[in-house]
Amino acid sequence: MSRWKPDAQGRLIKAAIELFAEQGYDATTVAEIAERAGLTKRTFFRYFTDKREVLFFGSEELERIWLEALATTPTDASPLAAVMAGFDPIAEMFEERLPFARLRAGIIMANPELQERELIKLQRLAGSIKAALLERGVPLNAAILAAQTGLTVFHVAFARWVAQDDPAALRRLIDESLDDLRKVTAAEPAATRARL
Amino acid sequence: MSRWKPDAQGRLIKAAIELFAEQGYDATTVAEIAERAGLTKRTFFRYFTDKREVLFFGSEELERIWLEALATTPTDASPLAAVMAGFDPIAEMFEERLPFARLRAGIIMANPELQERELIKLQRLAGSIKAALLERGVPLNAAILAAQTGLTVFHVAFARWVAQDDPAALRRLIDESLDDLRKVTAAEPAATRARL
Repeated sequence: MSRWKPDAQGRLIKAAIELFAEQGYDATTVAEIAERAGLTKRTFFRYFTDKREVLFFGSEELERIWLEALATTPTDASPLAAVMAGFDPIAEMFEERLPFARLRAGIIMANPELQERELIKLQRLAGSIKAALLERGVPLNAAILAAQTGLTVFHVAFARWVAQDDPAALRRLIDESLDDLRKVTAAEPAATRARL
Repeated sequence: MSRWKPDAQGRLIKAAIELFAEQGYDATTVAEIAERAGLTKRTFFRYFTDKREVLFFGSEELERIWLEALATTPTDASPLAAVMAGFDPIAEMFEERLPFARLRAGIIMANPELQERELIKLQRLAGSIKAALLERGVPLNAAILAAQTGLTVFHVAFARWVAQDDPAALRRLIDESLDDLRKVTAAEPAATRARL
């Protein structure tokens, strides 16, 4: 968190995270967040439409970083390689945010409405990645499958990262998740298939 | 649609589909649906909380069929094989519903709020499948990945099925989607990896 500049938005995020940690998400009001940040409610609403949005401020950043990395991959890289290219800078971006990510995951887990919001944001992200792949000339099915696979792998790795203590582990966990996915989707031996 | 029994719910669904096709989803009211079905609005609301729910009446059926099929697979079947076992009865269930599925897909595509609802229902379904796999003793990561992969494969195949004319093609399209997914996730040759 130390790298967030002392701008109004950064101060509001820092204040919100502190208050969510101290007294819980539900109990925290916008007025308290603004007060802790030494700002007015009016300023809060210049940056966020509501309290929930503080939890999702990283989404645009994540998408921007991911799409930038995807765009720099050689055009003949496979669709999945293009998607996976985002994970180096993404893991770097999250490295200093493990405490917040853990707090945030707990808040979202406890709140079905926030889970839906998270899900919708992740699907929009998958949609943007799919669109970027289509622009590179990837066929529709492969674009959907690569984008969705990338999101699934990231989602599983992120949950594992939040549940452990090494901030630098995310990139490795992403590779492990992809390996797990490959194992899960590996073609069955004929004998097993026949039993179904 | 012919197999739907002439019960109130079935009549309401049939009337709603007819009206959505004739005059569009947005323009159709609950009062019109009830009237076309020869029933009262009061009866409509006994079966559906709102007009949107008519579009999602198949979700519970889909989940029930999928989980039943999953439960009948041998306990030593792979997680993905257990998930894939649902697709025989699911494809059969949908075979007579292609015109409705196509109409429904068009309505949902044009309505962001319905897209979110669809997404949330699909994620709940993934959650149920994950839970069923966990109960069979599948490790958490494999359960998430197999459930998510199953949903992704189904989602891609369903979109392709709706866009073509053979009602019996769904099962084949599901297998093709799984093959496509395997191709997309296949490990890269070392040379390609090194370039990233």
